[in-house]
Amino acid sequence: MDETLKPFFAPKGVAVLGASHHPEKLGYGLARNLLMSDYQGAIRYVNPKGGELFGQTIYRNIEETPGPVDLAVLLVPAEAVAESLEACGRAGIRAAILASGGFSEVGAAGALLEEECKAVAAKWGIRMVGPNCIGILDTHLPLDTTFLPPPGPPPGSVAFISHSGAICAAVIDWARGQGFGLSRLVSLGNQADVTETDVLGPVAEDRHTRVVTMYLEGVSDGRKFVSAARAVAKEKPVIALKVGRYESGQRAVASHTGALAGSEKAFNAAFRRAGVIRAETSEEMFDWARALAWCPLPNGRRVAVLTNAGGPGVTAADALESHKLSLAELSDETKARLREGLPPAASVQNPVDMLASASPQHYADCLRVLLADEAVDAVMVILPPPPMATAAGVANAMVPIIQTAKKPVIIALMGERLIQEAVERLRAAHIVEYRFPERAASALAVLADRAESVGRCDEDDLRRTDVDPEAVRKVLGQSLPTEQGFLGEGDTLAILEAYGLPGLRLLKATTAEEAARAAEETGYPVAMKIDSPDLPHKSDVGGVALNLANADAVIAEYAALMARVKTARPDAEIQGVTVQRMAPAGQEVILGAVHDAQFGALVMFGSGGIEVEGLGDVAFALAPLTETDCEHLLAATWAGRKLAGFRSLAAADRAAVKDALVRLGQLAADFPEIVEVEINPLRVLGEGAVAVDVRVRILQ
Amino acid sequence: MDETLKPFFAPKGVAVLGASHHPEKLGYGLARNLLMSDYQGAIRYVNPKGGELFGQTIYRNIEETPGPVDLAVLLVPAEAVAESLEACGRAGIRAAILASGGFSEVGAAGALLEEECKAVAAKWGIRMVGPNCIGILDTHLPLDTTFLPPPGPPPGSVAFISHSGAICAAVIDWARGQGFGLSRLVSLGNQADVTETDVLGPVAEDRHTRVVTMYLEGVSDGRKFVSAARAVAKEKPVIALKVGRYESGQRAVASHTGALAGSEKAFNAAFRRAGVIRAETSEEMFDWARALAWCPLPNGRRVAVLTNAGGPGVTAADALESHKLSLAELSDETKARLREGLPPAASVQNPVDMLASASPQHYADCLRVLLADEAVDAVMVILPPPPMATAAGVANAMVPIIQTAKKPVIIALMGERLIQEAVERLRAAHIVEYRFPERAASALAVLADRAESVGRCDEDDLRRTDVDPEAVRKVLGQSLPTEQGFLGEGDTLAILEAYGLPGLRLLKATTAEEAARAAEETGYPVAMKIDSPDLPHKSDVGGVALNLANADAVIAEYAALMARVKTARPDAEIQGVTVQRMAPAGQEVILGAVHDAQFGALVMFGSGGIEVEGLGDVAFALAPLTETDCEHLLAATWAGRKLAGFRSLAAADRAAVKDALVRLGQLAADFPEIVEVEINPLRVLGEGAVAVDVRVRILQ
Repeated sequence: MDETLKPFFAPKGVAVLGASHHPEKLGYGLARNLLMSDYQGAIRYVNPKGGELFGQTIYRNIEETPGPVDLAVLLVPAEAVAESLEACGRAGIRAAILASGGFSEVGAAGALLEEECKAVAAKWGIRMVGPNCIGILDTHLPLDTTFLPPPGPPPGSVAFISHSGAICAAVIDWARGQGFGLSRLVSLGNQADVTETDVLGPVAEDRHTRVVTMYLEGVSDGRKFVSAARAVAKEKPVIALKVGRYESGQRAVASHTGALAGSEKAFNAAFRRAGVIRAETSEEMFDWARALAWCPLPNGRRVAVLTNAGGPGVTAADALESHKLSLAELSDETKARLREGLPPAASVQNPVDMLASASPQHYADCLRVLLADEAVDAVMVILPPPPMATAAGVANAMVPIIQTAKKPVIIALMGERLIQEAVERLRAAHIVEYRFPERAASALAVLADRAESVGRCDEDDLRRTDVDPEAVRKVLGQSLPTEQGFLGEGDTLAILEAYGLPGLRLLKATTAEEAARAAEETGYPVAMKIDSPDLPHKSDVGGVALNLANADAVIAEYAALMARVKTARPDAEIQGVTVQRMAPAGQEVILGAVHDAQFGALVMFGSGGIEVEGLGDVAFALAPLTETDCEHLLAATWAGRKLAGFRSLAAADRAAVKDALVRLGQLAADFPEIVEVEINPLRVLGEGAVAVDVRVRILQ
Repeated sequence: MDETLKPFFAPKGVAVLGASHHPEKLGYGLARNLLMSDYQGAIRYVNPKGGELFGQTIYRNIEETPGPVDLAVLLVPAEAVAESLEACGRAGIRAAILASGGFSEVGAAGALLEEECKAVAAKWGIRMVGPNCIGILDTHLPLDTTFLPPPGPPPGSVAFISHSGAICAAVIDWARGQGFGLSRLVSLGNQADVTETDVLGPVAEDRHTRVVTMYLEGVSDGRKFVSAARAVAKEKPVIALKVGRYESGQRAVASHTGALAGSEKAFNAAFRRAGVIRAETSEEMFDWARALAWCPLPNGRRVAVLTNAGGPGVTAADALESHKLSLAELSDETKARLREGLPPAASVQNPVDMLASASPQHYADCLRVLLADEAVDAVMVILPPPPMATAAGVANAMVPIIQTAKKPVIIALMGERLIQEAVERLRAAHIVEYRFPERAASALAVLADRAESVGRCDEDDLRRTDVDPEAVRKVLGQSLPTEQGFLGEGDTLAILEAYGLPGLRLLKATTAEEAARAAEETGYPVAMKIDSPDLPHKSDVGGVALNLANADAVIAEYAALMARVKTARPDAEIQGVTVQRMAPAGQEVILGAVHDAQFGALVMFGSGGIEVEGLGDVAFALAPLTETDCEHLLAATWAGRKLAGFRSLAAADRAAVKDALVRLGQLAADFPEIVEVEINPLRVLGEGAVAVDVRVRILQ
């Protein structure tokens, strides 16, 4: 852990600046929580008014407060925070939680106050959490620097890092009702200094923390976040709820790749690379967190369902399928052993339906049999209030089996009042239960996903050595991009070639006769396209003529094409045409790379032509790519899947596409000044692939 | 209501056959529940052993039991049920709930017993619910014929019809915990007689029922279900959870349409037509049911969010967007009025963030202002435990406003313990609350969907009058289909023509010279295709030659094509080739109709070519189609959306596609013996559309 952050997580002594003996003030709540949390270090109260609180002196200022104090929690009016911080600096304190509000979140005047604080902090080398935050809480140390109304969260193994303070309060309260505890909680507020990326490692280091959950409104530095999260996710699962989608996707951009990227796609790519699990809702995040904290990971995706009723079994099977889990094929031995104890009408096929007469003993015996089957990776037990027994009786019978199992077992405990005792029994034993099979299936899927992703944490970036960055640098140095930053087609092809990306030779011509000569040179049939910096979408303006078979056709079409373009866009600057041999027939895909403001180079892959935008058949990954990224780009898109061939469609060179993706990602990662590259289409042949049309835009 | 079903819902007297005074027996539970339910009719207990129960005589048989009894509930051993039913018949009872298990659900022996019961019921004209069911329950009548452990559900306005008994028990228990009541509950068991379709109308007729929820494992008769559900959905919302997906989609079929249809697609089409809302999970169904029972419907999809914290506001905005709701654009007047009462740092943009200091009065005042804005169709109020007030205080201040509002207001009450009092206050006032903004958004979306679908309930089927069913009948009568039931291409085109579906003239030829003559007749360029009953997928075997420009080309290609096909499929019966003029260029789509075993004629629309299966870009609707169905088919697919034109892709004749869909649906609905029709592709031109390749398969 960064030494400067230590006082936040293991302070020797904590001073509360703004402690109050008025119970309705937050400064009272904070002092009370700190005391009640059973924190074992020194606790000091500070308030210019002095007095006494909980039998202890309230010191008039921090400088005269006796040590040891290495963490200050400030709950003084916004205007007084900078001054208090200054006093902390003089008192030798180098860590402060700014719980006060009234800073940049309230507008320009507040932002000025925040800048003052930053200046003071910089001067003294003080690390700050906040302002406008709830504080930090550790149930095991223990430590509670929040001012929230009690009770605090029960101790547990789920850590929570949040950009929103209001959500912390709700989560603490809700966790208690849902029967799981928190290990550490960090409310980050305005992040004037310490960010979500800074605290991720320190929070996860805690031995009581088994899962880290995060409520994110963004990240402060994309690449740093990815590398910090990746390091943590190797050891412990990280689940993030990233909000703010509705604000995104409104950037004005000049290419498909740019238009389709948007920050949400970048976040998804970043989370995938980092091994962070993205939750869609708050409930999902904590449902999953409980399962990850309390269950062993499964070896695969085959689930056995144990039920005492058919209906919920069917619901479970549906839910498993929709989460890409499968119903385990039980072995004959398993079926025979199940049959032994059950009535003849019971079903020993998966879902195993023991019928309504199932006793606690039936549940326990069958669960044991299912767990012993090698074809079973995990078990979902369905328990509606049993007509002939109590749910608590069933729970009691299963607890010892589940606690010693090496495979995850999740219970769908259906009902409310009749199952309360069972709920409490299971929660106390750290066994995961939900009210419905659907949520149980979702949690089992996350366990399986996590098991698969753990193995990929150490995966290296793919990098080709036969690339020539020097050549690219030279081209970029000499290039004369258009106003929008697009390179000419010659420079574009040179850059591609330097990175081993196969392009078609492209000749320029400014008269019909030159075009015909160029066509003779490349060989027929040719494609002739308008050459204009103002017309990135050539076909929209009639600027493309294909399959010209001889010089006569080229000459005739030259005039026609010019006429069409001039009619469509009389204002466009026309530099002539380009002539290119027609690529052989093949599958067409789009490859792109874009420089995302948060996460840097991002590679796109998908269906070429108009389908890319109309159909949205695209996927993104952070560059440079890993093997898993490449496979993801191909597997997540129809464009990628059909490379393997489909019905009458012949297979195309999948390996060539992967190679092109790797090289494009490497190019984009090596040259941040290339803000967009787009190969649309890449024509994928039976063997090899050709970039038919390429555009490169660079930073101006 | 069907008169024969009346005794189930308004019995004059109920006899319990199998009543027991042993508390551990289900026959005791049933007798107790009936008595405790406060049912006002006659209650009679019957058991051959006689005796007394709850101070009443247990009669030895039903025939000597005094009246009035018009409903019998049987909880006797399976083997004795038929005999007891016989006795009921003799006693003049014409309605029976068979609560006993041990029938078809346990295998062949049980199925025989069930058949016996059906025979007895048929003989006496007895209507039966069950066997193997939980019974019927009405909280308002009141009546409880279940044997479930108490307490029963609280009275409410949500009815529940279920194919699963176990789920009934869980739902009753869970409803209590979630704070909503049930009006009626019907557990259908094995449906030896009465089905979900039979009870749908009678259950919905109840004046206390505002929403009908259904747990379905299938439907007994697809078309009857659609028409019954449609009649109910006009008046009251119907929500269905249809399970059993994992079992479907495994039929062996011979066309794209058939392969893609599957019973789930048919269910979705049926639910859409019937106006039934399909829930994906049990929680969703009851979340939505509460909202539909308690909220007025909104006039549109514009939602205002009122919060005391930024984070949950962002979460809410995301969730609204993902449910296709929008953030209402507040008027300047609204913003000014909001600003009046709030601190300067508050945000009066939507989401309206009143800041953490928001008091109950702030919540009430701002809510009133938002409801008064004409641009606001609904409001989501977000209420994490407020730092300066209690959640209950806020709830109290808002209750009278929400109760008198003409627009729906849903509360995201975040937390657990700190909000319990608020939860109870709101539930008592029938105001909808969930723990998280995401679930609130989902419920608001369902309200908006319901408001939109109510208006479409009376929509008529579209039918063209210029069709010639007689001609089709004649062709079908004379046709000589292949072994798989495919019609020859001449018959196929004749059928299409009779329904005004534009096809390309198709000539047959058995020699190269004949083919050339045919081509001269249709005009060049032509497409030549293999003519074989064994080769439905012609291009897969090299059986298609396109763009043949003259007689020489036709003659040369004839030999090449035959050679390719014979190499690929030496076993296939070859009848020669077909010759057709090439259709002009246009967009290609697929149209199909298939006869679904449950729901009858089903129309498919989507992307043509290999994309139809590879990409799954298809949508389904029940035939004959309505205007809404047509629009749905086009809007739900990329193939349909791009007909309007997209970038360089010219618009195509959307109206012609809609017309073809209507005609195809009409054909399929008129002729159930046509099990599959597929137009793949339909070439859609700037004006008009041409069926390039068509296959019709009929019932053998």
